[in-house]
Amino acid sequence: MVTPRILTGFMELLPEDQILFNDMLDTIRGVYEAFGFLPLDTPTIELSEVLLAKAGGETEKQIYRFQKGDHDLSLRFDLTVPLARYVAQHENDLTFPFKRYQTSKVFRGERPQKGRFREFYQCDIDVIGQEALPLYYDAEMPSVIYHVFKKLDFGPFTIRLNNRKVLNGFFKALGLSEQITDVLRTIDKLDKIGEENVRKELESLGISADKIDQILELIHIQGTTDEILAKVAALPIEDETFKEGTAELSEVVSQMRLLGMPDDSFEVDLTIARGLDYYTGTVYETRLDNYPQLGSVCSGGRYDNLTGFYTKKQMPGIGISIGLTRLFSQLLDAGVIGAKRKTLISTLVIPMSDAQMPAALQAAAAFRDAGIRTDIYPLVKGMKQKMKYASRIGVPFIVLIGEEEAKEGKVALKNMETSDQQVVSLEEAVLAVKGER
Amino acid sequence: MVTPRILTGFMELLPEDQILFNDMLDTIRGVYEAFGFLPLDTPTIELSEVLLAKAGGETEKQIYRFQKGDHDLSLRFDLTVPLARYVAQHENDLTFPFKRYQTSKVFRGERPQKGRFREFYQCDIDVIGQEALPLYYDAEMPSVIYHVFKKLDFGPFTIRLNNRKVLNGFFKALGLSEQITDVLRTIDKLDKIGEENVRKELESLGISADKIDQILELIHIQGTTDEILAKVAALPIEDETFKEGTAELSEVVSQMRLLGMPDDSFEVDLTIARGLDYYTGTVYETRLDNYPQLGSVCSGGRYDNLTGFYTKKQMPGIGISIGLTRLFSQLLDAGVIGAKRKTLISTLVIPMSDAQMPAALQAAAAFRDAGIRTDIYPLVKGMKQKMKYASRIGVPFIVLIGEEEAKEGKVALKNMETSDQQVVSLEEAVLAVKGER
Repeated sequence: MVTPRILTGFMELLPEDQILFNDMLDTIRGVYEAFGFLPLDTPTIELSEVLLAKAGGETEKQIYRFQKGDHDLSLRFDLTVPLARYVAQHENDLTFPFKRYQTSKVFRGERPQKGRFREFYQCDIDVIGQEALPLYYDAEMPSVIYHVFKKLDFGPFTIRLNNRKVLNGFFKALGLSEQITDVLRTIDKLDKIGEENVRKELESLGISADKIDQILELIHIQGTTDEILAKVAALPIEDETFKEGTAELSEVVSQMRLLGMPDDSFEVDLTIARGLDYYTGTVYETRLDNYPQLGSVCSGGRYDNLTGFYTKKQMPGIGISIGLTRLFSQLLDAGVIGAKRKTLISTLVIPMSDAQMPAALQAAAAFRDAGIRTDIYPLVKGMKQKMKYASRIGVPFIVLIGEEEAKEGKVALKNMETSDQQVVSLEEAVLAVKGER
Repeated sequence: MVTPRILTGFMELLPEDQILFNDMLDTIRGVYEAFGFLPLDTPTIELSEVLLAKAGGETEKQIYRFQKGDHDLSLRFDLTVPLARYVAQHENDLTFPFKRYQTSKVFRGERPQKGRFREFYQCDIDVIGQEALPLYYDAEMPSVIYHVFKKLDFGPFTIRLNNRKVLNGFFKALGLSEQITDVLRTIDKLDKIGEENVRKELESLGISADKIDQILELIHIQGTTDEILAKVAALPIEDETFKEGTAELSEVVSQMRLLGMPDDSFEVDLTIARGLDYYTGTVYETRLDNYPQLGSVCSGGRYDNLTGFYTKKQMPGIGISIGLTRLFSQLLDAGVIGAKRKTLISTLVIPMSDAQMPAALQAAAAFRDAGIRTDIYPLVKGMKQKMKYASRIGVPFIVLIGEEEAKEGKVALKNMETSDQQVVSLEEAVLAVKGER
């Protein structure tokens, strides 16, 4: 006998939680599809040579990598590398801009800790262009995020956006291009370590007090979105990349508004850098206003070239990702997640005794034919136990069939919420439940 | 640069095929949920000690098994073992009979050949009881299969059913209990090697000609379902298991009919044994009448004890499985699968020039707010190329916005199928598309 158990760092849910998880997954998928993203489902296992073409360092250590037969194999650790491989491999069969979504599990064998998983769902969308990709997609991404989190209904949220060109150009103008990675990494810690420590770290990088003041001035720009955009544009920075970035940021905000996003759903945040050596334009983070401790629940940005490791062609793209397993787990812990359902059925058919099973079967068939999710309670138990079962699973309607009802071709339909009960024909019962849903 | 490629034996689809695959998966999931099955999603990776408690021989060789840190890990090779582990582990938190569905990928590192995959979807349902499980579920399984394949719409199909007790009891009565596994394995080959070879194989097992005649008489019983049931019941076999099996078979058929299954959707087939050391009662196979070469597309049966390796409690169950990756791949090869769609959107908004982008964004937002899947064509291209794109992806409606339309707050709505085009207000366009869907 073996003790039944799973590994730590893997999420496995009871049915009532799995129902909620699937609801979230369906909501996300529905919004992605509403924006024209196409489904993709790449293999879980790929050749290490292909999957790890780019990887190295920390990423590589986390990979589930193994030998099978003659093959050196790895489990995917994200959905971006498989997308790059897919686009390079199938370029001639795809229509560009190529918009795809993928909601799949990815695997990282890291030391498990609270909120970290070794196996978790990522819900990604990306748009890939050939050579160029219109700025429209920089506005489409936050619009998708907006619709997803409005539908998920976890209260107010804020999408923060920035443009890496603003930061890159700014630091170039200050003559700090060489140190940009270090400076951005330090700025990124502002929330965690505070301004004084950021200043100290910047000093230790050999940056003059004068320049540090300018850096802090930039990242402290505040006000309404339009005020922030005006202040940034008014900075005395003579650099083409900087000007391009501020112009893009303005245009993206303008398009986001045209797409129907209210101003309180987003803000320009000049401190956001994200993925230091990856993103090259607009970048995003998303916070749930009431649960700041969750950090960013949806992030992403624009990159210049997705497929560099697989093809010589330049393929720019933009994408966002929701780490759904982590988000779900945190919301569950925070008690944010909606009412749990122990069943997906609307109607439970209960024969009073075994003699009414034939009538119960016919009743269940009629309900199912009408598109109503229906189950039968077939155990030989007392009426009290049967009712207790119905209460426990929380089914909205029960259909009771006793000797009398079966003889007359009727059923007793009970609304479990109101406790209303009426003896009606099977057809009437089906219509009543259909009307109530 | 690395050549982008995947391993043989792994299915990866282009978006138009992925859409069809997802349609099938959604259909199956919808029917499973309509019958009250609850969703489950177990980890892809489990501890080898737990996952392989039962495995051995051929199965074990196919496992993707590897070491990570201190752990001996394996990828799941089916959904039944994880279910057994789950039920044993969470028994106290589950409501019984426990009905679950799982539609997940499983992994078998076998030598790939046509129609065999190393990574494939299984779509399983099982009902697990505590100590006992009503016979109703033996009728529910084929009813689920019936609804799934009616909805999948691949033409007529036949669900074949049998009961292992009929076979077991029959062979016991013939004094062939010791050889039952060998005999059943031989009978299982009837379709492949023909009656003469079956007879020879049975002879080589040391079975007398007289008994071989009786065996062949049993498996050759033909007629309508009721005739077959009557002939089996009339056989001069004095064995309790045999009588129990024939009674169960009759009752299950009766309940299947009450659940609305027409007689041409199923047949009793006494040659079906399946899973020789696993199934103990009703067993099923499903054939697509027009594509017999596909073999069984949905199989399963009843088993006495699911969780023997994890708990001392007796947990009988019944389940069926659809190997969706294989089925999809075969149907695709056979040209059976429906019209391909290159997009999921209903409406494509096309600004005539960049100046109409603001109006296009507002139009797309209005369509999306109305629940209509909508995309924008944002590339700066000639009108001819824009229309060519719309034709290529096969979108049902396009919304054209030129200078004139933008000025008047109108759009040109074109039905791509009928080529009807009319200039209307945005609200009218939204209503028109909504009405057409």
